[in-house]
Amino acid sequence: MFENEVIKDLLKKYKRLWALGHARALMGWDNEVNMPRGGSEERGIAIAEISTLSQEILLSPEFTSLVEKASKQEDLNDYEEGVVRVLNRDISIMKKIPPSLLYEISETSQRAFHAWRDAREKNDFSLFSKHLEKIVKLSIELAEKLGYEKEPYDALLDLFEEGLRTDDVVNIFSYLKPNMKKIVDKVLSEKYYYFDSPLEKERYDIEKMKQVNKEVLDLLEFPWDRGRLDISPHPFTNGLGLNDVRITTRYEGFDFKRSLFSVVHEFGHATYELQIDQNFKMTPLASGVSLGIHESQSRFWENIIGRSKQFTELIKPILDKHLGFTRNYDTEDIYRYFALVKPSPIRTEADELTYNFHILLRFELERLMLKGEININDLPELWNDKMEEYLGIRPKSYKEGILQDVHWSHADLGYFPTYTLGNIVAAQIREHLLGNNFNIYELVNEKRIRDIKEKLKELIHKYGSTYRPKDLLRKQLGEEYNPKYIIDYFEEKYVGH
Amino acid sequence: MFENEVIKDLLKKYKRLWALGHARALMGWDNEVNMPRGGSEERGIAIAEISTLSQEILLSPEFTSLVEKASKQEDLNDYEEGVVRVLNRDISIMKKIPPSLLYEISETSQRAFHAWRDAREKNDFSLFSKHLEKIVKLSIELAEKLGYEKEPYDALLDLFEEGLRTDDVVNIFSYLKPNMKKIVDKVLSEKYYYFDSPLEKERYDIEKMKQVNKEVLDLLEFPWDRGRLDISPHPFTNGLGLNDVRITTRYEGFDFKRSLFSVVHEFGHATYELQIDQNFKMTPLASGVSLGIHESQSRFWENIIGRSKQFTELIKPILDKHLGFTRNYDTEDIYRYFALVKPSPIRTEADELTYNFHILLRFELERLMLKGEININDLPELWNDKMEEYLGIRPKSYKEGILQDVHWSHADLGYFPTYTLGNIVAAQIREHLLGNNFNIYELVNEKRIRDIKEKLKELIHKYGSTYRPKDLLRKQLGEEYNPKYIIDYFEEKYVGH
Repeated sequence: MFENEVIKDLLKKYKRLWALGHARALMGWDNEVNMPRGGSEERGIAIAEISTLSQEILLSPEFTSLVEKASKQEDLNDYEEGVVRVLNRDISIMKKIPPSLLYEISETSQRAFHAWRDAREKNDFSLFSKHLEKIVKLSIELAEKLGYEKEPYDALLDLFEEGLRTDDVVNIFSYLKPNMKKIVDKVLSEKYYYFDSPLEKERYDIEKMKQVNKEVLDLLEFPWDRGRLDISPHPFTNGLGLNDVRITTRYEGFDFKRSLFSVVHEFGHATYELQIDQNFKMTPLASGVSLGIHESQSRFWENIIGRSKQFTELIKPILDKHLGFTRNYDTEDIYRYFALVKPSPIRTEADELTYNFHILLRFELERLMLKGEININDLPELWNDKMEEYLGIRPKSYKEGILQDVHWSHADLGYFPTYTLGNIVAAQIREHLLGNNFNIYELVNEKRIRDIKEKLKELIHKYGSTYRPKDLLRKQLGEEYNPKYIIDYFEEKYVGH
Repeated sequence: MFENEVIKDLLKKYKRLWALGHARALMGWDNEVNMPRGGSEERGIAIAEISTLSQEILLSPEFTSLVEKASKQEDLNDYEEGVVRVLNRDISIMKKIPPSLLYEISETSQRAFHAWRDAREKNDFSLFSKHLEKIVKLSIELAEKLGYEKEPYDALLDLFEEGLRTDDVVNIFSYLKPNMKKIVDKVLSEKYYYFDSPLEKERYDIEKMKQVNKEVLDLLEFPWDRGRLDISPHPFTNGLGLNDVRITTRYEGFDFKRSLFSVVHEFGHATYELQIDQNFKMTPLASGVSLGIHESQSRFWENIIGRSKQFTELIKPILDKHLGFTRNYDTEDIYRYFALVKPSPIRTEADELTYNFHILLRFELERLMLKGEININDLPELWNDKMEEYLGIRPKSYKEGILQDVHWSHADLGYFPTYTLGNIVAAQIREHLLGNNFNIYELVNEKRIRDIKEKLKELIHKYGSTYRPKDLLRKQLGEEYNPKYIIDYFEEKYVGH
């Protein structure tokens, strides 16, 4: 796989950077899952210190000259070229960001996170607005340092999704928006998927729900010797290494689909990481290539597989065994509960149909912020206006509106569009599989989950970060991001049922 | 506290090293508490990489010249001098160890640990002996690099306990051995503390025992916002920072004192870390000064406080509330169960009276190993012979004998004597407090745990690593290690009862 001597030498040196990344990943996981509140100051500084140290090592003449030497090698294979590509990209980004700016962003976002948590608890935007203002200022500074073609937002988008431009996102939404609107209107008037399910109110015992999640993961053949399931307020996946990938979920005590589909969603992320070629262990290729492609995997499992009739049927016995109350409902009831469409002010509670409107709203606001065309204090109102326009509901509190997401407190402006990208790509993959007579729904029916995982491994996972996101899609699916397929999928599922 | 500008600059630079130490501590904690088995290869390499990186940074001309400059400052206060002292010691040790040796020890011990775990499970010493042989070889190499006055063992002892020499340990044991022997013989013939307690066999529900441990920690005012209690096969304490100190225990389902006193023991360690002056946060002074002094704190709480009649009385309601079966026993029964003396082949199950014989045995074997005067394959027999000589019992398996401890697999030769040091110092502290009319037993009676913690803070904790262990003892207790007091304590408790 890696034969070139210079590349081999480079990978040996890279292990140090990998180790620091591993440490940071573990600290991040621990922050959310275990850390007592008192530890946050020390942890924040540890992360900031290790981040700047990583930057220094990456940019050290010793390392960059080796990358340069590697770049000049001839006859590199795809994987070796991938290594060079990823490192050159990292170096070119890091070179442009002054260490002091990196440190300031890291420190500011630590403080902003705590302020956001406070503000959210107290439903008081003013506790967070100053921090957000500073984060926007730093993000603009960051965009200027990174450089861009058309507008500052391009620079940030590219950080999260290599090669993605504001124009791409604009194009995607100009197709999605009117088409989604039509479908949502149809669903809301029809009331087959839009209704009050009594299952939303059924309370569950947390220990029993844990059993459900465990057995669903067993059924999906989650490798417990290479992963964990824990609890955190915001579910996430953390790949500490190719053989230690951890997911989380939450337990609210009612509306069990939230806890369940968080697990299935994170399982999709985890499976991507777990199925990367083991030869890439501890190399720059050892992770999913981008947030968008990653999200395509989680959404594929959560929505396309997870919210299907076949999957509902498959897991019904597990639900009946542990939750009990599901025995009073037939598979069709539970399927409709899983596929429920219901405009909600909260993104993380949104169904797959209304979800992208939440992203559109954030995308539009972030773009304005980055252009400096909006006063931070006007944001909450604008947020609510847009929510009313897109989904016909008006948030009743900051908590239901502008303060609901953690991302801005983490200084992650430009991150949200990758969620919609993931939704789109998941539907592209579905179309690709069905179009090639790989019937995922039949396979679920036959409990052949392993075959689906194997197929996704060959299609996407095993390559890790070898190819650029757009290149990977072209190579494996025949085209780049195309929003057509998700609309087709929505029409088939929600209109043509 | 830190006023000198050079020191302040040094502490700022030191934060990077602290951050790497913090990361390593977290990785160590995670290894034992959370990590899925599959993660061990990647984790092992991450730890080795970060260890050598820390060494490089510590020894970089940039850092060492700053330490040198700081060393030449005049009018440093005790804390500033402490900073300089700790860093000079670290540098002088690390300078002598070639990075390749450090890396090899780290990697070898990762492998040895897994081999040990296997060997122990299968009760097959041959699976571990090759690894131990290599570890002894590397330890001798390490000792030679570090240098020593009289024998290689001195070099390793000093690593774990600054200033401790083999002669000190020999002197301690030549006083302890005959005196302990006498007391143990008396206790065994008398059968007040030596008997079969039915409580050893009482089975408990793990969830209920967790409640007991939680409430005992509440009673001891363990600060949950600055710490955690988890489960691990071998209980330990890990100070990730001054405001994030984590302890563990285990649950075997019977003989509840084991789980309980693991908690009280680790609480003692944790309290030391938690009560270090907050001004030392993220500095070289921000941890207990040595393993021996640390162990004195855990043993003080576990044995002197924990196994006292007063403490038994204090926690009896908690036991009765959750375990239930303790209601059939009076406080005297439970006290005698807590203070039970019973020669056991297993160190971690040993009572406070026979415990030091386990250390003596290990000390003697380690010394022979380091001198190269013993064949590794003869070790198991020699172990068993000594055990028979000291405690009159012969281990029936490797698991009960040579394979019981993890330390050698971690390449921690020279560590064991610090346990006996801790026992001795705990008794010195007891004598110091009682001699100064600070009646710990009365305070326990009055539930005034906070007063005891406050006293220990003033006596030992708040200084962190400011003073060398021997200096700290001289300054605060008036003398260095003195084995007399533990014998006095044993006589008072076990003979004079």
